[in-house]
Amino acid sequence: MTTFREVRLKSRPEGVPVADNFEVASVDLPPPGPGEVQVRNHYMSVDPYMRGRMYDRPSYVPPFQIGEALQGGAVGEVITSNDPGFQVGDTVQSMFGWREAFNAPASTIQKLDTHGLPIQAFLGVAGMPGMTAYAGLLRVAALKEGDVVFVSAAAGAVGSVVCQIAKIKGHTVIGSAGGAEKVAFLKEIGVDHVIDYKATPDLKAALREAAPKGIDVYFENVGGEHLEAAIDSARPFARFALCGMISQYNETGEPKGPSNIIMAVGKSLKLEGFIVSNHYDMLPAFLKDMSDWIGSGKLKWKETVDEGVESAPGAFIKLFKGENMGKMLVKLS
Amino acid sequence: MTTFREVRLKSRPEGVPVADNFEVASVDLPPPGPGEVQVRNHYMSVDPYMRGRMYDRPSYVPPFQIGEALQGGAVGEVITSNDPGFQVGDTVQSMFGWREAFNAPASTIQKLDTHGLPIQAFLGVAGMPGMTAYAGLLRVAALKEGDVVFVSAAAGAVGSVVCQIAKIKGHTVIGSAGGAEKVAFLKEIGVDHVIDYKATPDLKAALREAAPKGIDVYFENVGGEHLEAAIDSARPFARFALCGMISQYNETGEPKGPSNIIMAVGKSLKLEGFIVSNHYDMLPAFLKDMSDWIGSGKLKWKETVDEGVESAPGAFIKLFKGENMGKMLVKLS
Repeated sequence: MTTFREVRLKSRPEGVPVADNFEVASVDLPPPGPGEVQVRNHYMSVDPYMRGRMYDRPSYVPPFQIGEALQGGAVGEVITSNDPGFQVGDTVQSMFGWREAFNAPASTIQKLDTHGLPIQAFLGVAGMPGMTAYAGLLRVAALKEGDVVFVSAAAGAVGSVVCQIAKIKGHTVIGSAGGAEKVAFLKEIGVDHVIDYKATPDLKAALREAAPKGIDVYFENVGGEHLEAAIDSARPFARFALCGMISQYNETGEPKGPSNIIMAVGKSLKLEGFIVSNHYDMLPAFLKDMSDWIGSGKLKWKETVDEGVESAPGAFIKLFKGENMGKMLVKLS
Repeated sequence: MTTFREVRLKSRPEGVPVADNFEVASVDLPPPGPGEVQVRNHYMSVDPYMRGRMYDRPSYVPPFQIGEALQGGAVGEVITSNDPGFQVGDTVQSMFGWREAFNAPASTIQKLDTHGLPIQAFLGVAGMPGMTAYAGLLRVAALKEGDVVFVSAAAGAVGSVVCQIAKIKGHTVIGSAGGAEKVAFLKEIGVDHVIDYKATPDLKAALREAAPKGIDVYFENVGGEHLEAAIDSARPFARFALCGMISQYNETGEPKGPSNIIMAVGKSLKLEGFIVSNHYDMLPAFLKDMSDWIGSGKLKWKETVDEGVESAPGAFIKLFKGENMGKMLVKLS
């Protein structure tokens, strides 16, 4: 029996999550049962979509339960195996994040071939966020030659990959992010026009200036004024991949919808929401492209890493304050 | 030289158009010049989209000009021809509505084969509004087997055709309209669940009740609360054909956007605006299907007809008060 810590949902957040919505608990892990393995997590992921699971309502993933450990992507190493398919030392990924270690049936975890990348890349650029960027831009928004691309939360784990894929494919890219450090990162990765939305009194005007002929693709991560500005600047037949709307996740009143949605009619706009789990048929193509792009130095990424499972709630809360640069991670061991 | 009357835009409406935004003028029409024909209009159309052309702003059609005759669909008869392609008595359609008669180059008008239908049907069910319904439902919303269909402004020129095409193809249809007469019409044409939105305090709740398992297609003519209710009741992968948003055309303040647009992400919704002029490649299929459906009595329509060119502004204004049933027309001769 070994003792590990995990983070549980103590209460459902109202508005922006606070530390007191979470609690750290110690768990005695018995040896894994037959067909099970015991895994020590090295890194866990915090992602904006997890906020949705903190509401008690039906959605595409079930809500987190009060008093239970949270879930999310994690990468780690098998420390005890009671299944012939896994050996001690195997690198694995799972959805058993928010805990230092866990026992689980072998069928619920996956061996990870890192192709020489650091393992935590599989929680970011080479994992779910990267795949979200890839599927959203190439399939949902159906990127095509000549498109001008606008990306919100452009310095985030998803947005920064969207920007770079679009640049690799030769497009003009406009990215929005908040603060000088993120602006500098976006310029470094080749974004053509960077809008610091925190320093911009009129986002619509800023986008019009950055894209005087309009935009053809909008990769939506933020919602609110960003969505309105994108509709305003959209060229006819523009496609919007609606990936998330982080500005609205903690809204306690009625969120503000895009007041200019009527423009979608006259401009024949297509606004399409998506969740990455419906696009995993693209995984082989994604891994091949990513491997090429990373290997040739065309695709870079940033990480913000906090340490210790007890820091996970704080790391999660940072997402909504825009305090992360690139992928927000928690290093567990 | 013969004198005819036409309706001109006197001033740009602010909010709901009023009679004083229009003026009736008499025009002396000379005989048609070489290559021209003179046409007496029998019917002219008023359509909601014309409101957009009364704003002075760029759009998919240029704005109407102050002091000039308005434009729109019309059907009539050649009364003098100075072009070998047309003979006196030919039935023609044109975009030279809002006037009793006009001279125009032969290339700008089309001969009309009525296939035994009343000529004014080509301003409604067999014309642009019918084609809008057909393209929007079958191509933009990509109607497929088993879809539950929700239609707003369901008793209107477009909506009533959408409802009937969906019924002909075997779908469950929910229609929203205002007032007992429209409700009765929708029941008469086989709509499964009719929501009288004027008598409904909570549109979301009414739609949830009418479609307990949700909707797969929304044909959007209204905007505002209707759009929010449709998003609320949408099943995963629902498709919204955004045809118009009549509730917003006269908005003088900031229109209210759909506050629940975030749901488009989790439910993978597709909201797509369209204008019928991009879908005229479907015209032959449309005319064939319409001819079959009308001929076999499967598709019915209603008209609201005002008389005299001087009544055109009032007929147009009725559209925004919901005072028309089916296609709103003005009979000119």
